[in-house]
Amino acid sequence: MLKITTLAGGVGAARFLRGLVRAVPDADITVVGNIADDITLHGLHVSPDLDTVMYTLGGGVEESQGWGRSEETFAVADELAAYGAEPRWFTLGDRDIATHIIRTQMLAAGYPLSAVTEALCERWQPGVRLLPMSDDRVETHVVVAREDGTEAIHFQQWWVRWHAELPAERIVLVGIDAASPGPGVIEAIDNADVIVLPPSNPVVSIGPILAVPGIRDAVAKAQAPVVGLSPIIAGAPVRGMADAALRAIGVPATAAGVAGIFADILDGWLVDSSDADAVTEVEALGIACRAVPLLMTDADATAAMARAALDLVTP
Amino acid sequence: MLKITTLAGGVGAARFLRGLVRAVPDADITVVGNIADDITLHGLHVSPDLDTVMYTLGGGVEESQGWGRSEETFAVADELAAYGAEPRWFTLGDRDIATHIIRTQMLAAGYPLSAVTEALCERWQPGVRLLPMSDDRVETHVVVAREDGTEAIHFQQWWVRWHAELPAERIVLVGIDAASPGPGVIEAIDNADVIVLPPSNPVVSIGPILAVPGIRDAVAKAQAPVVGLSPIIAGAPVRGMADAALRAIGVPATAAGVAGIFADILDGWLVDSSDADAVTEVEALGIACRAVPLLMTDADATAAMARAALDLVTP
Repeated sequence: MLKITTLAGGVGAARFLRGLVRAVPDADITVVGNIADDITLHGLHVSPDLDTVMYTLGGGVEESQGWGRSEETFAVADELAAYGAEPRWFTLGDRDIATHIIRTQMLAAGYPLSAVTEALCERWQPGVRLLPMSDDRVETHVVVAREDGTEAIHFQQWWVRWHAELPAERIVLVGIDAASPGPGVIEAIDNADVIVLPPSNPVVSIGPILAVPGIRDAVAKAQAPVVGLSPIIAGAPVRGMADAALRAIGVPATAAGVAGIFADILDGWLVDSSDADAVTEVEALGIACRAVPLLMTDADATAAMARAALDLVTP
Repeated sequence: MLKITTLAGGVGAARFLRGLVRAVPDADITVVGNIADDITLHGLHVSPDLDTVMYTLGGGVEESQGWGRSEETFAVADELAAYGAEPRWFTLGDRDIATHIIRTQMLAAGYPLSAVTEALCERWQPGVRLLPMSDDRVETHVVVAREDGTEAIHFQQWWVRWHAELPAERIVLVGIDAASPGPGVIEAIDNADVIVLPPSNPVVSIGPILAVPGIRDAVAKAQAPVVGLSPIIAGAPVRGMADAALRAIGVPATAAGVAGIFADILDGWLVDSSDADAVTEVEALGIACRAVPLLMTDADATAAMARAALDLVTP
């Protein structure tokens, strides 16, 4: 059985993973999920990326937006607003809140996030093994310019409240140095037949996972080939605001630019057909490269992308 | 301005308080609320009696049942059930959950329950000052007979799950010895012009309040007269299961029986017209007594009860 290990952010990764499952339904797939955009809201521990993967693969996601629960309602949020509770810029749906209530309760009872995630997945049966990158707390903060200097704000505040429009000077992973890979993460990398980087935000989704001490090294040394898919098409992110995040780390928002961030670990890289002229540039980094359609327009197109990624690096 | 201090449980007390506010709209009313039936559900701190008073006086209660929020929905509860979360015998509504989320978050941040209650009342403007009986944790547990001995269960489990049908051998107030009266409670008793015991459950609503060390003494020594209204009419509780609770403490479920529990503090006691023959029995305890209609059939009837209570003990 083909053992695939992937590193995943939120919406883009979740959609891609659905295609991957469709492309190789018999594969044994482990998803190492980003937790650095986790946030505590109204005392509830929210894990946006883990939930997006879980809901999407478990059939509970709101398809129209790619995150959150389908047929969602907002009675709790309306009431919180009536109480004047802050923050107001992040709205939690009622169905989604149940997930966070259970997570918060289990964490308070002493369960690590990995055990909580496993328990939540009991219900959703996502068809993959979903592992948080770490059971330790890591938070992506964005250093932004303010009139009176700079300020570090939580990633979600930058992303959701300010739509990444506040120029980011720096991205800081608070707690990363003290974090350890979650249970099973290193084993999943060591034992994989192939490692896949979905078209996720390279800076704030894949970046934090690789930054957990030990994970990037394990990926670099893994016997398995590592293949990734560019989240940048024709110089712009397909969705999200990867360009703003790339700007913060001084990397060009191009298909080849992103490949460069991962040059030490990549064996293969897919760029979109419209970026065919990037192939030579990527290959110059010693990375096999192909240009194929990378728009996840539907399940078939996404499965084809996944198959192309596997084909690029496996015999 | 007439200063009234009342001790209150849940539904019965809340309805009565609405009548009291209607009867003496200019009075300065302090409500000392029972917190011994508070319970932590799904990690959320629920204060049923405080919320019932707050919602009822603040116009947010579901009138048909006398507790919970009006126009309630249950998306979170449905999801918690889908996750298999326990307990299943206590269902929290979505709008109600927002209150518990805020309370839980504020308690976790270090605010005492009294400060939390004040903050929640900022929204509801109940027209009274609502004070928890204590900022300490007190829990009413009920010792019930089981096949293999006795078991102490949380009051809510006995009440909500078992509808008080498991015979109660004893009622235990866990934590009561270490509890102190909440901020303002003793002052409200000391400075009252009249102290009113609404027709609440004498064992599990009024009982725990009086059992907080210092409160019963303060009521007994208060300059203000103390008047109560019987929650028992014609040998049965008007609502709730006060008879089952009275049985647990070996007190007859009669209007005079309940007066006997409070004989050391009562100056006056109202019984229902149908219990007119209890008047002599109550007066024999040295308590002024009158028989008047005690069914809270509508706002006018309830206001008349409140006025009759005040008239019995004030010139």
